[in-house]
Amino acid sequence: MNTAYYIGIDIGGTKILAAVATPEGRILARAKRKTLPPDPARAADPLALAQRIAQTAQDALAKAGLDAGAIRAAGVGAPGPTNIHTGRVLNAVNLPGWQEGFDLGPVLSEMLGLPVLVDNDVNVGLLGEATYGATRDFDDVVGLFVGTGLGGAILLGGRLRRGFRWGAGEVGHTYLYWPGKKPREIEKVASRGAISKKLAKAVRQGKSPIVAELLAQRKDDRITSGVIRRALAAGDPVTRKAVAQAQEALAVLIASITNFLDPQAFVLGGGLVESLGEPFLEPIRERARALMFVRERVEEVQILPASLGDDAGVLGGVALAIEQTRP
Amino acid sequence: MNTAYYIGIDIGGTKILAAVATPEGRILARAKRKTLPPDPARAADPLALAQRIAQTAQDALAKAGLDAGAIRAAGVGAPGPTNIHTGRVLNAVNLPGWQEGFDLGPVLSEMLGLPVLVDNDVNVGLLGEATYGATRDFDDVVGLFVGTGLGGAILLGGRLRRGFRWGAGEVGHTYLYWPGKKPREIEKVASRGAISKKLAKAVRQGKSPIVAELLAQRKDDRITSGVIRRALAAGDPVTRKAVAQAQEALAVLIASITNFLDPQAFVLGGGLVESLGEPFLEPIRERARALMFVRERVEEVQILPASLGDDAGVLGGVALAIEQTRP
Repeated sequence: MNTAYYIGIDIGGTKILAAVATPEGRILARAKRKTLPPDPARAADPLALAQRIAQTAQDALAKAGLDAGAIRAAGVGAPGPTNIHTGRVLNAVNLPGWQEGFDLGPVLSEMLGLPVLVDNDVNVGLLGEATYGATRDFDDVVGLFVGTGLGGAILLGGRLRRGFRWGAGEVGHTYLYWPGKKPREIEKVASRGAISKKLAKAVRQGKSPIVAELLAQRKDDRITSGVIRRALAAGDPVTRKAVAQAQEALAVLIASITNFLDPQAFVLGGGLVESLGEPFLEPIRERARALMFVRERVEEVQILPASLGDDAGVLGGVALAIEQTRP
Repeated sequence: MNTAYYIGIDIGGTKILAAVATPEGRILARAKRKTLPPDPARAADPLALAQRIAQTAQDALAKAGLDAGAIRAAGVGAPGPTNIHTGRVLNAVNLPGWQEGFDLGPVLSEMLGLPVLVDNDVNVGLLGEATYGATRDFDDVVGLFVGTGLGGAILLGGRLRRGFRWGAGEVGHTYLYWPGKKPREIEKVASRGAISKKLAKAVRQGKSPIVAELLAQRKDDRITSGVIRRALAAGDPVTRKAVAQAQEALAVLIASITNFLDPQAFVLGGGLVESLGEPFLEPIRERARALMFVRERVEEVQILPASLGDDAGVLGGVALAIEQTRP
């Protein structure tokens, strides 16, 4: 039988995505489902979530007109640190029932009747971009994903750096330190979540009528990346300041990582980067290069936007499955 | 002829050290010489410095009762970023005549009649500790060397990480950032040089009578690591605060690097660490572990003092020569 295809699965806080693809990254079919079940009574059952993931993969298979026999392996991005040898998600703070860890690899493998490889979602997203996307020409790449938090992943010599306790890449937990101050984590400044929190406070205090008006129009008080983009366009000074601080923190981080690791490329993704685009990225690029210590070939340090969008996770799952099942 | 031995050379800002050693790191003979020539007129001649380095190596050879025919290769630690493929020191800001770069490898190879491998001194020092010293049991090691500045080097999978522009390991140029403040480099806080500068200012302003008295006793106004150690022992509050800020900055750096790269071990060396010893290191170790994001096996992250002292450079040179001439 021809087992030429792979399944990639991306487990997010709100939705599960699955895709069937060729080794070259051509997607044959997609499926998606909400992460949390409609029945809240089942939300805390760790097996119920695994079943929803398996069903999403089977939906994608059915849409592709294939059965499991046509699939070589499935690769999964999970929202938490993961032991890729055992397939155990060590903890997934945002998923009810998985906070204490869950043996996703073996459980899903049993459900699907396939080899299943699991890694954390940020590693998998970077693997997608590095194999099929923005940085496919580079072997040493640091990925920074700016969303609710700030996620990171590191590819060195074409291999993901996972760390001796599966803890590498947690770049959102890089500390900002200033003599006399208590250290705080960079994602408290450089994330969509941090910006939203500042804007919500400004709205409550009546300091940002522009954002208040945008929220009133949407009849929804969630400050999404889209709201931030529109508030910037409307010239809101509170938003401008919060975004500028996030940009400066990211530029400093990129320069510090360059001084430490000297990689060829950075890829920046996540909801905020996708929404704000090049006007957000260009000042970061310029400022980061200005702060780099070694000046030789500084213009060759690539700082690129992610190019796969929502497909980074599922294609990264495909790349993970290929990487880990290669003979 | 038996070419069983190696020469290791360590070029510092004040002295050149050379040693002849076995591949196992047993030193047969040592030699040293001041880096800058007695005749200031020759100080800016880049070749004059190379000749002094070659003479120091030849002194060590003569003391060992050997000639160049008994040596397989020489390895050199140079005080600046270095292209190890060409042996070119890209710049050595503290060495007259070498600020614009110098082809040390080829020049020294010609002078000594031997293969000569060159890397920057911090890489070479870490290679010494990782091959023969404190971290010889670990494959993933970050070295932090606290002296005039803060030097760093990274060993991953047993290999030095050099970076695509030969710029990796410049950890002293990690930026401290705080929203609303201008980024500054961590070595402006976490180095012997930074502490000395603060104490010199305090002495000028009459705010540290203890340090003033220590300097008067020495009849020398250089605030060395030894002066800092004695000022701490005498309970000087200015010294205590400056050292505590350096410790906090180093702990935050170690925690941030752990969150990013998750290496098994850190080795801390340099004049300040050697002088202050375990009372300096233990609070850093405890604080860094408390700040690490992944809590699993956090007590297994090693934070060790360098163990080779002044020999780290020459033994690192030997390890470099072995690494780079291995068939």
